[in-house]
Amino acid sequence: MKLSGLQLIGSQDDHAGEQTFRATDPQNDIPLEPAFFEGTGTDVDRAVRLAEGDFDRLRAMGPQQRGGFIEDIANQIMALGDVLVRRACAETALPVGRIEAERGRTCNQLLLFARMVREGSWVDARIDRAQPGRSPAPKPDLRMMQVPLGPVAVFGAGNFPLAFSVAGGDTASALAAGCPVVVKGHPGHPGTSELVGRAIRRAASRCGVPAGVFSLVQGRGYEVGEALVRHPLVKAVAFTGSLKGGRALFDLAASRPEPIPVFAEMGSTNPVFILPGALRERGAQIARDLVESVTLGVGQFCTNPGLVFAMQGPGLDGFVQEAAACMAPKGPGPMLGPALKDNYQQRLAALLRIPGVEPVVPVHLQSHPGCRVSPLLLKTEAHRLLAEPLLGEELFGPASIIVACADRDELLGAARALVGQLTATVHGTDGELADYRELLFLLERKAGRILLNGFPTGVEVCDSMAHGGPYPATTDGRSTSVGSAAIRRFLRPVCYQNFAQPLLPEELRDRNSRGIWRLLDGVRTREDA
Amino acid sequence: MKLSGLQLIGSQDDHAGEQTFRATDPQNDIPLEPAFFEGTGTDVDRAVRLAEGDFDRLRAMGPQQRGGFIEDIANQIMALGDVLVRRACAETALPVGRIEAERGRTCNQLLLFARMVREGSWVDARIDRAQPGRSPAPKPDLRMMQVPLGPVAVFGAGNFPLAFSVAGGDTASALAAGCPVVVKGHPGHPGTSELVGRAIRRAASRCGVPAGVFSLVQGRGYEVGEALVRHPLVKAVAFTGSLKGGRALFDLAASRPEPIPVFAEMGSTNPVFILPGALRERGAQIARDLVESVTLGVGQFCTNPGLVFAMQGPGLDGFVQEAAACMAPKGPGPMLGPALKDNYQQRLAALLRIPGVEPVVPVHLQSHPGCRVSPLLLKTEAHRLLAEPLLGEELFGPASIIVACADRDELLGAARALVGQLTATVHGTDGELADYRELLFLLERKAGRILLNGFPTGVEVCDSMAHGGPYPATTDGRSTSVGSAAIRRFLRPVCYQNFAQPLLPEELRDRNSRGIWRLLDGVRTREDA
Repeated sequence: MKLSGLQLIGSQDDHAGEQTFRATDPQNDIPLEPAFFEGTGTDVDRAVRLAEGDFDRLRAMGPQQRGGFIEDIANQIMALGDVLVRRACAETALPVGRIEAERGRTCNQLLLFARMVREGSWVDARIDRAQPGRSPAPKPDLRMMQVPLGPVAVFGAGNFPLAFSVAGGDTASALAAGCPVVVKGHPGHPGTSELVGRAIRRAASRCGVPAGVFSLVQGRGYEVGEALVRHPLVKAVAFTGSLKGGRALFDLAASRPEPIPVFAEMGSTNPVFILPGALRERGAQIARDLVESVTLGVGQFCTNPGLVFAMQGPGLDGFVQEAAACMAPKGPGPMLGPALKDNYQQRLAALLRIPGVEPVVPVHLQSHPGCRVSPLLLKTEAHRLLAEPLLGEELFGPASIIVACADRDELLGAARALVGQLTATVHGTDGELADYRELLFLLERKAGRILLNGFPTGVEVCDSMAHGGPYPATTDGRSTSVGSAAIRRFLRPVCYQNFAQPLLPEELRDRNSRGIWRLLDGVRTREDA
Repeated sequence: MKLSGLQLIGSQDDHAGEQTFRATDPQNDIPLEPAFFEGTGTDVDRAVRLAEGDFDRLRAMGPQQRGGFIEDIANQIMALGDVLVRRACAETALPVGRIEAERGRTCNQLLLFARMVREGSWVDARIDRAQPGRSPAPKPDLRMMQVPLGPVAVFGAGNFPLAFSVAGGDTASALAAGCPVVVKGHPGHPGTSELVGRAIRRAASRCGVPAGVFSLVQGRGYEVGEALVRHPLVKAVAFTGSLKGGRALFDLAASRPEPIPVFAEMGSTNPVFILPGALRERGAQIARDLVESVTLGVGQFCTNPGLVFAMQGPGLDGFVQEAAACMAPKGPGPMLGPALKDNYQQRLAALLRIPGVEPVVPVHLQSHPGCRVSPLLLKTEAHRLLAEPLLGEELFGPASIIVACADRDELLGAARALVGQLTATVHGTDGELADYRELLFLLERKAGRILLNGFPTGVEVCDSMAHGGPYPATTDGRSTSVGSAAIRRFLRPVCYQNFAQPLLPEELRDRNSRGIWRLLDGVRTREDA
């Protein structure tokens, strides 16, 4: 399968611009063939118009066909076989095992949404029947369900070339909702993006889905992203990446004549609190697990634990020694690209210049070939966090800061001072967790997910997942970008008043032919009305 | 009951500023006693800090207590008796019957949310149990539910002094969600606001709810509103009013260091389409009902039908004649205040200057005492709408524009050109509605509520209501500000991973003690886990 480097605009391979860019092999920091065309506003406009043009057909499509389409995307991705795995590994320096696991997760995610579409209750159907005799005024027949917003712009993420990229959770949930998708491919893995984009196109063609429901525009610069977010026919934006990038898109979308929602997941420091009893009982084990979590995938997870709070004392000293001993032998690993490597090195250098911030393992800031970096563990005291905002910002890469707290109050104060987080973790014995309910209650306001006695890396795709959190973890803390509830981002309610049965959407007719759960005169049921 | 003119800050009556303002009696355009203090940033800051301080107690409160509190607000409003009705009538010039009906609706709205809180399924509990043996990786125990956002700023609306004001749908749904509320009272009815504010305070005190969960800050200028939206502890904003006002709040909130959601309902033109068969069969009746809908409450409803589309021809001529005959004898009625009267007169004058826009009843632009205005019916052709954006903007007051369409294509084109609407209405015979499915499908993208053979004024408060719609009807087309789904605006999901039973919120424990509907390993059930 030869990569074309072209934009996938509906069913056409095309390019409006002439500039090109290449992916980088992060192992050796050298460019990879072929050249990819840099997308332009013209490419975006064509893609979005096609999306709008085929939106009506997508939203009117029955659940079997739409579900089948989403399911077939998974089949077509698997059918790419090793070509996809090899290209993804070459572009990201992630190991084969990781890419294969991520591919599995991506396909499972697609299957979850395919099942959800087929099951059908996601439309949240509600029926309040007429009461013509009600006094003082008769009650009309009212029925409501969720409908898709319209074309959605999806920004592929660099750190998950499959699961948060072209056919990732954003695309899967938007298509499930009935929204056409225009993806801006992440410039770190354009070959992977093209392969997956062609798989989606193939699935559409096989399932009789109009080609305009999916396009992929590639680009390294800002033009494609800006054109997408500004385009009047785009109705929502999904993004996973940096705070700077997510906020820029949010600001752009909010300044439109017609503002649109931006669901940007922008990472966080994912604080971990280790309570004294847990430190005493199993500090060494937690230290070992922490180092594994911090260095997993060269630390390039949104849920990487970047701040570890524990109470000052001999328990903490032992914990730090054990963590240092586990981390010291870890060799350098390749980051996804040169820009991330530079950012990591610069951020570490800045952290090391802060008084009272000390490395607990030897520092290797330069000297690695390609995009390789060494992991690092730092230590500081809680009171410094308040004075140095940099300590509370996400550090993307295999590093973490252990924060010593003088006492319980200082630990709670540090939790209170946290900004919004994707996750927050507490390690404690059963007894002390009960004693620290205040901490748990406090973290509920800070994070989208709270974990006990585990590590935040590893995000399960299921109904109960909340991968989100208050700003700056996301631009919309009311949303999740992982799990079945992610579909809600792309829906809006419509109420139908006094509609005759045949004019109603099938989900709202008296006869519940799809057997979905509905709220009927206030009662949840699968019965007919 | 004597009005104090003071701010109600938690349990205290206070004022930080010294400036005052008075309400206007719109019947006579004269000021009403007493003077009310103009709120300041200091008042707002005190109120928001109290709200934040009592948030934890409100969100931890059991459903019986929180539901009882919301229910008792309705009791306390009723206990105000005629004092409330008289003051509301004096400040708004709305008739006693209308105010009494609105009070009934306001109380029913509170009772709906009280029932919802007590029933409990609104938290959308989801449980995915652990699968320790799953391969390749064990699945952790994950449970998710919706939790409240934090303090909410509510802006009282001028046109519904009870139902969309201090204890209106925004306040009721925010309190139901567990969010403390700081209301900016609408300056048109400060006395009504103070009375209702005291009723809420009384209910809180009777139900053991901490006083900080509710404050009322009054003001005529921009200072209170700006201070509220900018306050870092405020987590969401609800507003009903003009496009200009709503957009200003949205822009302010989006520009905060931590952006927050703004749910602004900003009205719309609520287009009505009359298909040829309906025009032929019952044109005269539709004309009479239309005039009643347009002039109801001096046309001061967000759902007032401002644009009426029908096909050119003798049927339309007869329709216009009948509507004109019904409207001509309607005398002038008082608008809510002098600013609205001026706006209405100026907008009508501007419309009358547009070539091809003609009045079909005599025009009385000036000459009425107090804030009285005369209703007006205008006529134009569909092609002019595209050239004159003013024709497509909401005209707040008892006026409507009949738009003649040359043919079916022009009618569909006019529908396609519409901006977002709260409602869209179609009158048609059964046969022609089936023939115009394209129109219904098109309107689904434009409006939050679609009505057949009725009129949009009158918004039912129930589970199936969607009172919202794409921009510029609202700043968030994914939300509704009326009905039980309005609670969702103030919620965010939190996922609990590997929590021991006693540490989980009651709604997520294995034993379903509250008997709520939950999603248990993908299955909707009220059973224990």
